[in-house]
Amino acid sequence: MRQSQLFTKTRREAPKDEVAKNAQLLIRAGYIHKEMAGVYAFLPLGLRVLKNIEHIIREEMNAIGGQQVSLTALQDKNLWEKTDRWDDAKIDNWFKTKLKNGSETGLGITHEEPLTNIMSEYVSSYRDLPAYVYQFQTKFRNETRAKSGIMRGREFLMKDLYSFSATEEQHAEFYQKAKAAYVRIFDKVGLGESTYVTFADGGIFSKYSEEFQTVSEAGEDLIYVDVQKGIAVNKEVLNDEVLAELGLKREDLIEKKSIETGNIFNLGTRFAEQLGLQFKNEAGELKHAIMGCYGIGLSRLMGTVVETLSDEKGIVWPINIAPFKAHIILVSSSEESKARAEEAYKVLGEQLDGVLYDDRDARAGEKFADADLIGLPYQILIGDKNQKDGNDNWLCEVKNRKTGEVQHVVLADIASAIK
Amino acid sequence: MRQSQLFTKTRREAPKDEVAKNAQLLIRAGYIHKEMAGVYAFLPLGLRVLKNIEHIIREEMNAIGGQQVSLTALQDKNLWEKTDRWDDAKIDNWFKTKLKNGSETGLGITHEEPLTNIMSEYVSSYRDLPAYVYQFQTKFRNETRAKSGIMRGREFLMKDLYSFSATEEQHAEFYQKAKAAYVRIFDKVGLGESTYVTFADGGIFSKYSEEFQTVSEAGEDLIYVDVQKGIAVNKEVLNDEVLAELGLKREDLIEKKSIETGNIFNLGTRFAEQLGLQFKNEAGELKHAIMGCYGIGLSRLMGTVVETLSDEKGIVWPINIAPFKAHIILVSSSEESKARAEEAYKVLGEQLDGVLYDDRDARAGEKFADADLIGLPYQILIGDKNQKDGNDNWLCEVKNRKTGEVQHVVLADIASAIK
Repeated sequence: MRQSQLFTKTRREAPKDEVAKNAQLLIRAGYIHKEMAGVYAFLPLGLRVLKNIEHIIREEMNAIGGQQVSLTALQDKNLWEKTDRWDDAKIDNWFKTKLKNGSETGLGITHEEPLTNIMSEYVSSYRDLPAYVYQFQTKFRNETRAKSGIMRGREFLMKDLYSFSATEEQHAEFYQKAKAAYVRIFDKVGLGESTYVTFADGGIFSKYSEEFQTVSEAGEDLIYVDVQKGIAVNKEVLNDEVLAELGLKREDLIEKKSIETGNIFNLGTRFAEQLGLQFKNEAGELKHAIMGCYGIGLSRLMGTVVETLSDEKGIVWPINIAPFKAHIILVSSSEESKARAEEAYKVLGEQLDGVLYDDRDARAGEKFADADLIGLPYQILIGDKNQKDGNDNWLCEVKNRKTGEVQHVVLADIASAIK
Repeated sequence: MRQSQLFTKTRREAPKDEVAKNAQLLIRAGYIHKEMAGVYAFLPLGLRVLKNIEHIIREEMNAIGGQQVSLTALQDKNLWEKTDRWDDAKIDNWFKTKLKNGSETGLGITHEEPLTNIMSEYVSSYRDLPAYVYQFQTKFRNETRAKSGIMRGREFLMKDLYSFSATEEQHAEFYQKAKAAYVRIFDKVGLGESTYVTFADGGIFSKYSEEFQTVSEAGEDLIYVDVQKGIAVNKEVLNDEVLAELGLKREDLIEKKSIETGNIFNLGTRFAEQLGLQFKNEAGELKHAIMGCYGIGLSRLMGTVVETLSDEKGIVWPINIAPFKAHIILVSSSEESKARAEEAYKVLGEQLDGVLYDDRDARAGEKFADADLIGLPYQILIGDKNQKDGNDNWLCEVKNRKTGEVQHVVLADIASAIK
């Protein structure tokens, strides 16, 4: 895309009321717009990042047998009364509203209730199980405080998968598969090294839940990491009994602030019992489905990447989720350089599924500062100072945004050099 | 996808409270789930249709220079007060709710206000215009009656594009481009022949708006069609003056019931004035941007296809939006036929980007009835009655769902025969 056509522009300052680093940088670079605290619109570059994250997650969810649906935001109060999660005294972050006829409805904070209800219409035999159903859906949560940018939204995009199993064995098998898929997702989005599977409170359903916690100074959680073993324990369950059970020693653990970027829960049969999700097993006995739930907040993931991987110049996107892999920067007004930049735009655009091309009539220094702020993985400088190789082909200056490393590469080789 | 794995199943009956034909069929075939009146979840097959429609629209919007964003559902009351569209006396279908601090917010019925506000941060010169910005977003409208299935939802997916132009000429040029893109969209989704560009009331902004009206008995609008000229007039503006202006004669017009499946509006400078979207023109004078808005409801489009193209056996999907192009139906339990069906599933799945494969242990009659209800464009029957061609290759029976026409085709030729 030509930067002269992109309607967003970079800004020197973020809005004064924005205190989160992730939102400050994303607003300054033109990725998002703050509608109100905890409510952000995604502008063209920001939406591309979100869609790249979505694509990575979808592939992994499909690979483990997930079937994609799209449930509704507006919720049927009756379903939530059956599970005792409608009352504001029980769930304190509902946004509630009313239909014209006066009946109450609320905006989905999560989707166990509606999906369990849907499944009860389709599941009647053990042959109908297991089933794994997921969606990318906007969740609405009426947070009292929303000061963490896109990491804690009042309205945010989440992937939630729910598993429905006939037996504990089926459930356990899928749970492990989902966990492995999550590990792959964190690797692919560029957070693999800083993210730990973390034992946390399992609530009323099971002893533990497992969280994916990404180490960050901006985190609201405290975890205790055994770096050697690559696992962590959330402060909320840190006690001698748990340590013994997990084979961890207190002296090996390092305290870290962290962001909960994903979680997987055993839900047991609670929702199936309350909402009537029953099936006949092989012996003809009526049983309740065993459920699990597996969540990742996409915007939180995006915010975490910005929090943890940015530098003093701006954002540094991992290549798999960058809005574009490369930023062509034309730093000359000569016709000859311009022609080479146009050629590079055409060739690399096709090879890399789009690039950003700074074709603006602006100073080189301004273009460099903007490119660093926007944070695409590779910057391709084209100007009058470019040299030719031995075969009389022009060399472009290809700079790695993260490391600063510079290579001089002929156009035909750039795509393979940076993919 | 293997039908034995698909968690949805067909049903004989739709819910008793569902009166719309589109929703009855879509529920019976397992495409959607009714959460409450006017609020429908999209199940795996239904979501695939919606995504196919989205893909067609996105291509056309990108082709005319649209930049995709994703605005928010939660709305800033202040912006809507500036345009006098917050008060329930002015806009009567708001869903409103409150933040924890007691301040009011509402769920987006449309997005002129927030987008105009965003653009005011980025537009300052005529050089920043024109700009075309679109999104696929859930709209929330608190309809008093919601009895038209997915054609009139309280929560529904819409594509809305907004154009921002510096001059009337710029605006008019894009308006015509957008209109042509809409014509292509209706052609591609399979409604081209039954959809008319229809002159309708332009509201306070301009003399006319243009609607895309699809002829259907389920329609809530009345239009007067000049079939020869391929245009129509909405009843609301049918008078002698308008007819004279459009060069139409009353005796050439045929009254039809129709569904408004798209619309394009001139918005003039109203929103730019009320929300301060100004720019300096070439002469250095401050001007307000001229806006247009261009909407298509995706779920309404999907519902309209079902209303207008179904037959007594079920749904008939146009090939571009069908959840899968082909339905492989195994009608034998012999190992030999099963092996051929598995082979077809593998080969066609790769060639056609997925197929539905009825591998269930069920009677042939049940499979045929389900396939007709589900309505994929081509049914590929594989069983013991298949014959071989002269080269000793098995022929599959390929049936066109719409016409009933049957061909006998070797596996290697099926994809090219039905694409």
